[in-house]
Amino acid sequence: MSSITVDLGDRSYPIYIKAGIFQNTGFSFSEVRHSNAVILTNTTVGPIYLDNIVEKLEQQGKSVSVVTIDDGEQYKQLQTFEFIMGELLQKPMGRDTVLVALGGGVVGDIGGFVSACYQRGIDFVQVPTTLLSQVDSSVGGKTAVNHALGKNMIGAFYQPKAVYIDTETLNTLPDNEFSAGMAEVIKYGIIYDAPFFDWLAENKAQIRKKSPTHIAHMVRRCCEIKAEIVKQDETEKGLRALLNLGHTFGHAIESEQGYGVWLHGEAVSAGMIFASILSNMRGGISLTELDDIKGLLTFFNLPIHGPEEMKVEQYHKHMKRDKKVENGKMRFIIPTKIGHAEIVNDVTNTELQAVLG
Amino acid sequence: MSSITVDLGDRSYPIYIKAGIFQNTGFSFSEVRHSNAVILTNTTVGPIYLDNIVEKLEQQGKSVSVVTIDDGEQYKQLQTFEFIMGELLQKPMGRDTVLVALGGGVVGDIGGFVSACYQRGIDFVQVPTTLLSQVDSSVGGKTAVNHALGKNMIGAFYQPKAVYIDTETLNTLPDNEFSAGMAEVIKYGIIYDAPFFDWLAENKAQIRKKSPTHIAHMVRRCCEIKAEIVKQDETEKGLRALLNLGHTFGHAIESEQGYGVWLHGEAVSAGMIFASILSNMRGGISLTELDDIKGLLTFFNLPIHGPEEMKVEQYHKHMKRDKKVENGKMRFIIPTKIGHAEIVNDVTNTELQAVLG
Repeated sequence: MSSITVDLGDRSYPIYIKAGIFQNTGFSFSEVRHSNAVILTNTTVGPIYLDNIVEKLEQQGKSVSVVTIDDGEQYKQLQTFEFIMGELLQKPMGRDTVLVALGGGVVGDIGGFVSACYQRGIDFVQVPTTLLSQVDSSVGGKTAVNHALGKNMIGAFYQPKAVYIDTETLNTLPDNEFSAGMAEVIKYGIIYDAPFFDWLAENKAQIRKKSPTHIAHMVRRCCEIKAEIVKQDETEKGLRALLNLGHTFGHAIESEQGYGVWLHGEAVSAGMIFASILSNMRGGISLTELDDIKGLLTFFNLPIHGPEEMKVEQYHKHMKRDKKVENGKMRFIIPTKIGHAEIVNDVTNTELQAVLG
Repeated sequence: MSSITVDLGDRSYPIYIKAGIFQNTGFSFSEVRHSNAVILTNTTVGPIYLDNIVEKLEQQGKSVSVVTIDDGEQYKQLQTFEFIMGELLQKPMGRDTVLVALGGGVVGDIGGFVSACYQRGIDFVQVPTTLLSQVDSSVGGKTAVNHALGKNMIGAFYQPKAVYIDTETLNTLPDNEFSAGMAEVIKYGIIYDAPFFDWLAENKAQIRKKSPTHIAHMVRRCCEIKAEIVKQDETEKGLRALLNLGHTFGHAIESEQGYGVWLHGEAVSAGMIFASILSNMRGGISLTELDDIKGLLTFFNLPIHGPEEMKVEQYHKHMKRDKKVENGKMRFIIPTKIGHAEIVNDVTNTELQAVLG
């Protein structure tokens, strides 16, 4: 099975991408190296895939336990983190345990953070089952839970030992979740890869139909880009921040509306349009490019406006706590053209008012 | 001001040790490099030292905030962790913040863990004010909170940027806390440095009287030993585990009795005697050495027995969750002679029964 390597010295790891690996009798979780595995999953994904994964791990001679959490962004919080810790201690699992995060971004983020902190660190592998987690959150070692006062505010950089992506899981994904993932896919085109953006625009119909070859290419290209960026800037001192295009605005929407009301990808979609308008006002991207971005997001049923009732004050309240704030100054990622983005720290309140209303 | 270096490549840092540095007008917190500092302290230590530390940091041009928590091991838990996170977000503090942990082991351990996780990691410095934290917990990057099911079970390896030790703080330390710190001091002699053990025995009266020169030498030697061990094994793959002499038994006592009922050092003291008896039963340390250890611990009013009501079953319940468990086997540190210890994984239930009753 071909793989992409996330090249981080002694923390390097492979991403395996293939349709149908969970059904493939020849497949094994080669990077699950300890004899004890605990699968973390949620109430939606567990019933679909758990039996298969448990069977595979047991065939490999592993002793397997399962911890199940509720499904939804609102459960990505310290209370759930503590619940999982209690489950692991109750069994009890030792340091020689691998945590297998089977699910979407919430399971992966909280599972990674639990792995980072349980007995000061155990192995974990990511088995992402949503588009968003396959193309973005499972790769790169960002783990976290939310706090009422801000998204992903409590967490760690902690790399998995491997990422196993079975793109067939996307066939059982609800449409709005698929769309949410497309926001992150389109993001890679905007910040880093104009030809990929063009490819997405040309092949959007096949992608929406989940043509296996198109999905495979798309997921692979996103993972390649993420791996390239993370390799250069693991802990987000600079370049990696570009992956946050739309996220400063998006996190404000998610926090203000209550976690889970807007899907993360939906909030990022609206946020990317804010950032693009800001760029256009500053002489960055052209109106044509702005329309191309809007068109592609709209095709995938993604929002290009924030919630109607949210005004600049509500955004500001959350954005002042953004992790990119430095010396009290908010920093924003804005695309300068399709395929390129930069970090700016001189956005004025007048500009924000004009963009956010 | 002379210092010891904890040599960990790009995570190296200095330990400054000097009596009276908080009162010294020439002293500054040179390793506090960001312009925003938040001091974490507790309700006991804050009233004594806070004004002085705040003044020093403000003289250095820092913007200073304070977060105060209750005093006691029972507050070293996720609820306090979440409270501190909320305080930091409320202000809001950005990633360009240094957390200054001013207090004993609880403040240092939870402050370090908060620093590891707040916005995925901010700088922190340790300003330990108890003997136990000066000689042990502030050095080496072990950070954690307790869980009802086990001590230090949720945490991270996260190194401070510097450790500032003012040994004059020991003059305001309650006697039982000073004694608790002596358990860890004596531990270094037992596991690593026979001449230091002899020096402690010879100078015990001056140490108990807190003779400044003796205290200075003692704290420095402990920090040197800790730095030497941590340099060789930062994340406890082997050698560092020796520092846990007495801790497997001790953690069981702390968990079973309820955190804060026995001080950590008191529990470690009883635990070291269990480990020494186990060693003696196996032909390790001699009865004379065992008596020397008992004598020194007793001189500092430290317990050499566990709680009377605790039987082998109660110890076992907690010890099976010890972080050193590997492949389901408990591992223990036992001294082979004064100045040397080793890890064993073949202790039988019969032996435990004989030691623990």
